[in-house]
Amino acid sequence: MVSDKMLQLGRHSSVIRDIFEYGNQRRKEIGAENVFDFSLGNPSVPAPDFVREELENLLVNTPAEVLHAYTSAAGDSGVRLAIADYIRNNFGYPAESKHIYMTVGAAASLTVTLNAIVENGDEVIAFAPYFPEYKVFAETAGAKFITVNSEPETFQIDAKALYNAINVNTKAVIVNSPNNPTGVVLTEDSIKRLADILDRRSAEFGHPIFLICDEPYRELAFGNAIVPYVPLYYKNTIVCYSFSKSLSLPGERIGYIYVASQMEEADMVFDAVCGAGRALGFVCAPAMFQLLVKRCLGKTVDISIYNRNRTLLFDSLSSYGFSAVYPDGAFYLFLKSPVADSYAFCEKAKDYELLLVPADDFGCPGYVRIAYCVGTEQIERSLPAFAKLASYYFGGDK
Amino acid sequence: MVSDKMLQLGRHSSVIRDIFEYGNQRRKEIGAENVFDFSLGNPSVPAPDFVREELENLLVNTPAEVLHAYTSAAGDSGVRLAIADYIRNNFGYPAESKHIYMTVGAAASLTVTLNAIVENGDEVIAFAPYFPEYKVFAETAGAKFITVNSEPETFQIDAKALYNAINVNTKAVIVNSPNNPTGVVLTEDSIKRLADILDRRSAEFGHPIFLICDEPYRELAFGNAIVPYVPLYYKNTIVCYSFSKSLSLPGERIGYIYVASQMEEADMVFDAVCGAGRALGFVCAPAMFQLLVKRCLGKTVDISIYNRNRTLLFDSLSSYGFSAVYPDGAFYLFLKSPVADSYAFCEKAKDYELLLVPADDFGCPGYVRIAYCVGTEQIERSLPAFAKLASYYFGGDK
Repeated sequence: MVSDKMLQLGRHSSVIRDIFEYGNQRRKEIGAENVFDFSLGNPSVPAPDFVREELENLLVNTPAEVLHAYTSAAGDSGVRLAIADYIRNNFGYPAESKHIYMTVGAAASLTVTLNAIVENGDEVIAFAPYFPEYKVFAETAGAKFITVNSEPETFQIDAKALYNAINVNTKAVIVNSPNNPTGVVLTEDSIKRLADILDRRSAEFGHPIFLICDEPYRELAFGNAIVPYVPLYYKNTIVCYSFSKSLSLPGERIGYIYVASQMEEADMVFDAVCGAGRALGFVCAPAMFQLLVKRCLGKTVDISIYNRNRTLLFDSLSSYGFSAVYPDGAFYLFLKSPVADSYAFCEKAKDYELLLVPADDFGCPGYVRIAYCVGTEQIERSLPAFAKLASYYFGGDK
Repeated sequence: MVSDKMLQLGRHSSVIRDIFEYGNQRRKEIGAENVFDFSLGNPSVPAPDFVREELENLLVNTPAEVLHAYTSAAGDSGVRLAIADYIRNNFGYPAESKHIYMTVGAAASLTVTLNAIVENGDEVIAFAPYFPEYKVFAETAGAKFITVNSEPETFQIDAKALYNAINVNTKAVIVNSPNNPTGVVLTEDSIKRLADILDRRSAEFGHPIFLICDEPYRELAFGNAIVPYVPLYYKNTIVCYSFSKSLSLPGERIGYIYVASQMEEADMVFDAVCGAGRALGFVCAPAMFQLLVKRCLGKTVDISIYNRNRTLLFDSLSSYGFSAVYPDGAFYLFLKSPVADSYAFCEKAKDYELLLVPADDFGCPGYVRIAYCVGTEQIERSLPAFAKLASYYFGGDK
């Protein structure tokens, strides 16, 4: 009666959602303040005041028939010009606005990009751990989804493993830095080696391999961490951007695809992006929020709150005996499960009202993801529970 | 290097867009007031003041971390409840909110619906003339796109032709009323006959045939025209709705899919809709506009302006000798081309700065679409040009 594939996708919601729903239940039972929910990557820092002010300005100063009108399919030309300017000025990359396609957020950026480039028989590579929907998006576009494990401990790119995974069918490689779920930022060295491998393998197999950079967390990098602008290192790059995290607008679904202007055949690739946007029903991203992000380019939420959460959580959990990857960005802590079965660990954590996400669905068993995009006071209140959980596994003296 | 199918879709933009671009050029050359552009279905009546007021209220009274947060994939539960209430109260149909999926406008409603139900080998039927993107959406979902001509003159459903077009592979039939491009509203009698045929053919072939109702123009019906609520007549109906026209918010991309609650296996079909939304990247429609439409249910723009345009244009063009379908709804006049080649007619119209759209891409050669969602003064100023165009074809005495 319906598409079996879509039915299965609709019925099997993600483990993250399941845990979140469990949390809703527990909040009702014992009160929200007693549940330490670290399951969802929903930004806790509110959108800044300037977002509200600019939206109010738009409502007052722009005639409704202009403000809410259709833009062209690829987006408002002024908005696209401003984003190209921003890329040129901020990253020193010669961006052209004709290669920018406004989208309804990060998911749309990825599905439109994948549908634009994938043909039957193509393979798309992602590095484990990876955002689980990559697999759904790649397979829906018709690709075979291939995973390559990251380096253990550092979670940087395993260059040799990547080299071996690429074959004549490889159409694209997806990177996500700062990373969900590890919080790791790919170093310039990692990007250079990645670009080198893609250049060599593209030449060897006689066709370009696209590098898809999924970077909704670009602005969420802490301390001295630098997030390299990938088109500067590899010409056949497609950037999938979203303002969901940088401006705390996750529900508003606004982002863009940028087909790197120095790409071979950038115009042609952009035409395919337009075609995929049309075929999937993604033309004209939400108009008022297009105009909003134009006014907010280069501005972000107050990321010092996430930074404080990061330090508090990493230091505390380390002191209790847990082992975690030191996160340079995003708002996730990637914790090694004290036992091989991370589901069992997450179940045990529930005894202390700690809601963590097993990383098995991210392609990385034995780890759990802790989303610290919560109020700092939740972290402070949760620390005794983490200490008890540590005691359970490591003994009382930790 | 890219998907050939998507490249073709991206490169071959619609004839409507081409004419609109031509109009932009002419506006620069001779001034906007001298170009009579009837090409685009972009609402001319601005969003009502209550839309701005409600948006301002939301910005002032809702904390940003709530207002702009992710909703659940299918949409905010309060919004879905309100829409189900509205359907119950307004149409007398027992709608349940669990069958409503909020979407990013009409295009998304259609692509998600089609991807949810279509399996390989399926056929989807639409009535010519039809919105050209139906073909793109159906084929992208993997269906064979079949067209059935409407009744000549009335542009109601040709029941016999529909009956004959349905076979064991028919998965769905799409109707669009009030119609783009004809402006025709399907009568209750048409809907009843349609439901009867679908019931009989579903029984005969042993599987339900879905009826997809694309109804962004539902509220734009004039005079005594009544737009029947189709789920009352046929249980296996999926309503694809958008607020683009009713509230003049075309750029904001907000609408919904409603899987009729009395459908066989409505829950299962809704699960497939959720799966398709996930696979295409359409989860959580724009949050602030979800909350807005909840506050505006049952309200519309001032449609008396469209009604005035309709009467003025229909009466004037008829008096000049043109022949058109009398439109009961939407904001389109469907004019018979005085010559068989409607492209040639539209080219000739350009000599008088009249920009009309040949209906060939709508599957109906020999007609042109006139979008009268423009200022009434544009219509008034254009009448001498239409009169001259009529003189060219019919002689000076008309």
